[in-house]
Amino acid sequence: MTETLSSLVNHQVRLAARPVGLPTAADWQFTQEPVAVPEAGGVLVKVGALSLDPAMRGWMNEGKSYIPPVGIGEVMRAGGVGVVIASGHPGFAVGDAVGGYPGVQEYWSIAAGQLARSGLAKIDLGLGRATQWLNVLGMPGMTAYFGLMDVGQPKAGETVVVSGAAGAVGQTVGQLARIKGCRVVGIAGGAAKCEWVVRELGFDACIDYKVGSVKDGLKQLCPEGVDLYFDNVGGDILDDVLARIRRRARIVICGAISQYNNTTAVQGPKNYLSLLVNRARMEGMVVFDYTERYPQAVAELAGYLGDGRMKSREDLVEGGVAAFPDTLNKLFTGANFGKLVLQIAP
Amino acid sequence: MTETLSSLVNHQVRLAARPVGLPTAADWQFTQEPVAVPEAGGVLVKVGALSLDPAMRGWMNEGKSYIPPVGIGEVMRAGGVGVVIASGHPGFAVGDAVGGYPGVQEYWSIAAGQLARSGLAKIDLGLGRATQWLNVLGMPGMTAYFGLMDVGQPKAGETVVVSGAAGAVGQTVGQLARIKGCRVVGIAGGAAKCEWVVRELGFDACIDYKVGSVKDGLKQLCPEGVDLYFDNVGGDILDDVLARIRRRARIVICGAISQYNNTTAVQGPKNYLSLLVNRARMEGMVVFDYTERYPQAVAELAGYLGDGRMKSREDLVEGGVAAFPDTLNKLFTGANFGKLVLQIAP
Repeated sequence: MTETLSSLVNHQVRLAARPVGLPTAADWQFTQEPVAVPEAGGVLVKVGALSLDPAMRGWMNEGKSYIPPVGIGEVMRAGGVGVVIASGHPGFAVGDAVGGYPGVQEYWSIAAGQLARSGLAKIDLGLGRATQWLNVLGMPGMTAYFGLMDVGQPKAGETVVVSGAAGAVGQTVGQLARIKGCRVVGIAGGAAKCEWVVRELGFDACIDYKVGSVKDGLKQLCPEGVDLYFDNVGGDILDDVLARIRRRARIVICGAISQYNNTTAVQGPKNYLSLLVNRARMEGMVVFDYTERYPQAVAELAGYLGDGRMKSREDLVEGGVAAFPDTLNKLFTGANFGKLVLQIAP
Repeated sequence: MTETLSSLVNHQVRLAARPVGLPTAADWQFTQEPVAVPEAGGVLVKVGALSLDPAMRGWMNEGKSYIPPVGIGEVMRAGGVGVVIASGHPGFAVGDAVGGYPGVQEYWSIAAGQLARSGLAKIDLGLGRATQWLNVLGMPGMTAYFGLMDVGQPKAGETVVVSGAAGAVGQTVGQLARIKGCRVVGIAGGAAKCEWVVRELGFDACIDYKVGSVKDGLKQLCPEGVDLYFDNVGGDILDDVLARIRRRARIVICGAISQYNNTTAVQGPKNYLSLLVNRARMEGMVVFDYTERYPQAVAELAGYLGDGRMKSREDLVEGGVAAFPDTLNKLFTGANFGKLVLQIAP
């Protein structure tokens, strides 16, 4: 068995250079190496699918952040799901479905000493399909859950606005806010996405930022103002919402995808003094702070998936690791529809 | 008595136009009229001193805010202290020292029906001198108290930074944070102000924003970062602090004096994503929300004044209502040193 495994070739994508603006082909390096078969206590995973997330763009930059940057020459960091194909650890058996941070490669070899910090964990495909473990039941879902519930603290009857509404985090935020009794207005790009979040996910309304003005849309759809804004995009849309918040509003700063590929300074919210006028709060969150409470959130969200109150959509792209660079950039042009997932093995 | 009173002339300053940028002479109108002697149930106050506050600039602008704008042709809104010179109300006697919102005029006549909403209240000169009732024991002190304690929630041992450190709000914020066991770094303009807040008020350090870089000063004086920032100024200084906040930091948005006379858009904080990275919170406050708890804060602050743990400085300008326009602008050039007070009557 070990002999067969060691003849396998592992294709990888490594960070070749720190991008300036939108990543280009020159920022990536394709490598291949024999699969590293782990010794006693280790686990080998065949990667099935990778999660492509806006946060990846930040991981490619130098400098202090909530997580160290990916080093030049290192395999690009990525969350993913797969199947255990060799195990020297009593907690994992061949055939187990697992999730974690394999990085952009076909095989993930975890030595015994790295296991505790690897994030490797079994996933229950009875609660959701593998790609849902990269979406509602994975990092985007956890981000949505704790960002909305802990930081945003929605109350029934309040008006909640979420940008990136058809994206991985936004779709769960909006549906969860509806389940909690809020009125939910999404902001998304294009008629198809807007129609989907309203008709399929049950949002009360959706503003298409590619057509007409978000400001006017908010005025029309939130005549009494916004109690809670879950921000995934930053830029002008953040300012448009700031201009319409109500007293004691909460703005959850989850991301700012409109700014991640800036080659000039980030656009600061010029309407931030609306926080003063409205005694409002703008607060950042990082999902990794909530790791110990993931099981509670997974159980609740899996319940909603199970009883049909929550739906999910993954944008599954084929092509393996070679397709990674182009697929990642779909996030920044808004070309993805739903949680962007790169299939690595069928 | 009424006959004597009605022969008095009341000089007033009214808002003539909405300023563009720094207010100019053309934005003000000087008027005079006979004193309105109140009927039964009303009170007449001879104004002693007026509070000049950065917030006044906002009150001069059109548009929705936390308080209606001053109307064109109306007496300019202002807090002040004075003495009751006629009373038809059992709660006020001639000779009582009082505070409230008289506006920029020499006599404040409050009809019976307006009394409840006028803010008129007796002040105890045994707790602090009249000008301190416009400072530590007045609106700036209340702003400092509730902004720091309720919104900022300081913990002993934390590092607190306050801008406008020698100003009305800043001086109380810094001293109160010291009393609560925090390390306090001020930011002020000029060596004299910096020396005063350190030597007289006991701040741990002060950065002179007119000499050298605030960014470098923060790096040197807050090597482990900032836990709580009380912001009175906005602009570049807010960005400099955002770049140095610690995890779970709180930024209290009290004002943004650097931006109040902008003729272009407000400068948004381009480093706001530091809130995300550091799971930090930026929250606005308006002092009027805490009216019911003023007595508690006054009692505590008066105690500190009494036992010498807190000091105050008022920048008392003579010249009566005629001096109002030029005196107000001292706030925006930073020419005041301490709480700016305009003396109306000796």
